[in-house]
Amino acid sequence: MTYEAPLKDFLFNNAHIASNGADPETAAAVLAEFGRFCAEEIAPLNMAGDRAGSACEGGQVRTAPGFREAYGKFVEMGWPSLCHPEVYGGQGLPPVIGAAAGEILNAANMSFALCPLLTDGAMEALSRFGDEAIRAHLPHLVSGRWTGTMNLTEPQAGSDLSLLRTRAERQEDGSYRITGTKIFITYGEHDLAENILHLVLARTPDAPAGVKGISLFLVPKVLADGRRNRVTCQSVEHKLGVRASPTCVMEYDSAEGILIGAENAGLDQMFAMMNAARFAVGVQGIAIAERAYQQALDYAKGRLQGRPVDGSAKGPVAIINHPDIRRLLGQMRARTEACRSLAAFAAGVEDPVLADYLVPLVKGFCTEMAVLTASDGVQVHGGMGFIEETGAAQHYRDARILPIYEGTTAIQANDLVGRKTLRDRGAMAEKLVAMIAATEAALHGQALADLAPRLAAARADFEVATDTLLKADPLAAHAGAVPYLMLAGNLVAGWQMARAALAAEVAMADDPAFMTAKIASARFYISHILPETALQRTRITEGATSLLDLAF
Amino acid sequence: MTYEAPLKDFLFNNAHIASNGADPETAAAVLAEFGRFCAEEIAPLNMAGDRAGSACEGGQVRTAPGFREAYGKFVEMGWPSLCHPEVYGGQGLPPVIGAAAGEILNAANMSFALCPLLTDGAMEALSRFGDEAIRAHLPHLVSGRWTGTMNLTEPQAGSDLSLLRTRAERQEDGSYRITGTKIFITYGEHDLAENILHLVLARTPDAPAGVKGISLFLVPKVLADGRRNRVTCQSVEHKLGVRASPTCVMEYDSAEGILIGAENAGLDQMFAMMNAARFAVGVQGIAIAERAYQQALDYAKGRLQGRPVDGSAKGPVAIINHPDIRRLLGQMRARTEACRSLAAFAAGVEDPVLADYLVPLVKGFCTEMAVLTASDGVQVHGGMGFIEETGAAQHYRDARILPIYEGTTAIQANDLVGRKTLRDRGAMAEKLVAMIAATEAALHGQALADLAPRLAAARADFEVATDTLLKADPLAAHAGAVPYLMLAGNLVAGWQMARAALAAEVAMADDPAFMTAKIASARFYISHILPETALQRTRITEGATSLLDLAF
Repeated sequence: MTYEAPLKDFLFNNAHIASNGADPETAAAVLAEFGRFCAEEIAPLNMAGDRAGSACEGGQVRTAPGFREAYGKFVEMGWPSLCHPEVYGGQGLPPVIGAAAGEILNAANMSFALCPLLTDGAMEALSRFGDEAIRAHLPHLVSGRWTGTMNLTEPQAGSDLSLLRTRAERQEDGSYRITGTKIFITYGEHDLAENILHLVLARTPDAPAGVKGISLFLVPKVLADGRRNRVTCQSVEHKLGVRASPTCVMEYDSAEGILIGAENAGLDQMFAMMNAARFAVGVQGIAIAERAYQQALDYAKGRLQGRPVDGSAKGPVAIINHPDIRRLLGQMRARTEACRSLAAFAAGVEDPVLADYLVPLVKGFCTEMAVLTASDGVQVHGGMGFIEETGAAQHYRDARILPIYEGTTAIQANDLVGRKTLRDRGAMAEKLVAMIAATEAALHGQALADLAPRLAAARADFEVATDTLLKADPLAAHAGAVPYLMLAGNLVAGWQMARAALAAEVAMADDPAFMTAKIASARFYISHILPETALQRTRITEGATSLLDLAF
Repeated sequence: MTYEAPLKDFLFNNAHIASNGADPETAAAVLAEFGRFCAEEIAPLNMAGDRAGSACEGGQVRTAPGFREAYGKFVEMGWPSLCHPEVYGGQGLPPVIGAAAGEILNAANMSFALCPLLTDGAMEALSRFGDEAIRAHLPHLVSGRWTGTMNLTEPQAGSDLSLLRTRAERQEDGSYRITGTKIFITYGEHDLAENILHLVLARTPDAPAGVKGISLFLVPKVLADGRRNRVTCQSVEHKLGVRASPTCVMEYDSAEGILIGAENAGLDQMFAMMNAARFAVGVQGIAIAERAYQQALDYAKGRLQGRPVDGSAKGPVAIINHPDIRRLLGQMRARTEACRSLAAFAAGVEDPVLADYLVPLVKGFCTEMAVLTASDGVQVHGGMGFIEETGAAQHYRDARILPIYEGTTAIQANDLVGRKTLRDRGAMAEKLVAMIAATEAALHGQALADLAPRLAAARADFEVATDTLLKADPLAAHAGAVPYLMLAGNLVAGWQMARAALAAEVAMADDPAFMTAKIASARFYISHILPETALQRTRITEGATSLLDLAF
């Protein structure tokens, strides 16, 4: 089963959902060409890569068959530079195109796509916090000839970075020597590029305790003078999914590093780099969901089994005719489209506070959605879905990391509730409510008026839930944090689907089949998925006591 | 991480939930002993078996390391015979104990447990439909020295048995020759037992078309005179989970078979055997959920990360102190306990119509729950959950087959809606409603009165949904079938938790810690999980049009 980029949906979102899109012709040309490249060169490596995995021997990591050649072409054709600033050799396309391109690459091959994803995160930190000498590294990353990593986690320090132990000792020449063990380092070592720039969180000897004493360092694999730095890959993990992406244990043994910005400023720098990566991980969720959907749809159209329930035919029919298969496929399609529109909306937002607010929604909601959607994809295949040769199971395995890395769903939820809702006493939530109410008003009197009451009900659930959290004590607020994130993500995604339906109605003549399908997806989403807000509201308003009373 | 059978919960359900339990002393003695055996001999083989899998060479299947020895002890100690009739050498314990023992074995090692599970299904068919000569095989199965299989699926015939092509030709001596290919045959070949009795669906040359022309045959691997029959394993599948359970492609090449009952009566016989297997698969869901819960709980108590949100401590605390980890663990525990009580209730029911009604609920609801719970188990582990060495990922992989085999969730839902609700015009649903209303009445005026309104609301959702389905056209009814199954399963499970809370209140003095925890689980279930009935109701009452309007 091959992959075809959902070009029409990207262009629709670029034109109608994102407020800051690319010009339509450029968007169409770039995404069509990138879609073709990924379908032909990257997607065919996905299943074989899963089977072969990567291996570490003597500190060298061998990537899966074909990855080296494909990465070479990816770089040669200039794809890594698509959305980076022109000053560093990038092509300067807007983030909405970046989100679409990121989805395409991840749908084609999530293991492959993780290398550029982490490199993008590293670039974010270097360009925002590096001095001129550090920024001089950027053109190598933009071109893709070098790659980047993010080294946060240690065995005892995962979500809790205050427990970091990696040490950084300042030398007389102003450089640092880094010593410690980092785990879960994606593409920490590989054979795709000439050099790897490691961004490493570490502590200087006199640093304050906890997260206030963390500094960020640039540690190249190969030093400027061509020497190999003292950083080595010890092993790669045996994982449930994304098996072709080497997840490395990295040993820093007095490795030479350069401080980025000032000492003890690492936490904020890390958050900046994480924010970009978190958004990108949300997009990975959409990518896996789309790939799983395309595969399930293809299977459902070809597999003959059973008679139609309305007696309209005698012999066996394709299973796509059975209502519950349509329900599963409808759920997959509507959730994927809704999350895609959420990401496109977020990518186009110009208000930086709103953009920041939306990051945990994109990361948390789209990745939880991906796990459900990949699971539905297996279910559509029946017994064949459980056989690895089919490929549906790989998506189910690959998707499972998404709600975990770059901050678990609970971490996203604590960010949304703590930093972005309690801190401003619900001001941004209130702004969102007003924007959604405006869409409700636009729906009235239209052929889409039936969508308004459900959107209004979901918005009211959000208001009540926000109010509850603002008044709750810290334990109760955190007990409701993930339900609140799921409620907010669902609401904002459902709101985009309502906006999409309105736009489709207006643009109907442009492409009647596509616009009709978009309205159908919106209607399905709003009647089947959006009503989950009431359940989450109940959990928030009535569930804290029974949760906190549990003894284990 | 080892496994410990939840003995207290089994004994509580035996005493308070099931109406037809064993005497408490016998139950305690048998389950404690079996729990010890499984924890010591079977559970340790679970992860190694997953890694090694099984292999087929030249028609011989080699099971995973240790399986042969463990199966030998299992038989030697008489465990296979626990709940089978004494007339065939069984110990005649009631089904409530069978469900508990099945859970223990599957929690210890689901791949191992599949062999006895399928053998039990075969016994059901042989004892109900076989003549004296056929029933003479039963003592070999009851003892576990022989095992049984169910051969339904063919490449073109999965859920749709009307498409079966395997042929059976009657010989002059009254025996049959069976020819065809069967796939997905669990333990179709292995090295654990002296003989394998295959139950095979096939068509005689003059059989009517479709499901009315299916007959059931007994095809032994080794014939009565010691000759090897012409049935061979061609290959084993490479699967997402239960990798140590050989899933075989079986080739019948004019194999010698014996007709069970009459020609063309295979479908009903198959349903009888399926009903037992379906119930057992629901129990597998509870088993995997319990194992995943125990592992997640253990990890959450040991992993130090983060500070308490209420500021009650400075240093890192075990993650079990974080509200969202408690929410995940609470969800896992409450769902598992609720499904266990649902299965215990169903196992103890004496009304055969109600017992039949409950089978799709146990199968459909408990298996979907298992997938969610295993996924939550991965989430509790964070990044470690994605590493195969941890073991949490195996449960996530193993669980995924449960909503598929022995009839997908949609097949269960069609059974519930078509055969068990529309056919009796909702009569059984109405009976259930009355039973639940009686529990609501018992809750009033108690310390548990707060549970009554939510149980009543869920019961009302069920009534409205039933009414909607009774009036719906066939397409709309099938569009709502899975949501209806999930609603009904949730309601009946939640009702058992309410009954459990009432019983725990009365029995408080027997074991205050256990009874308090049971009431806490019930309260969590009823405030966090039971409210999903409103969502399913909305999907049923308002979702059919938007679903059926989708074009693909």
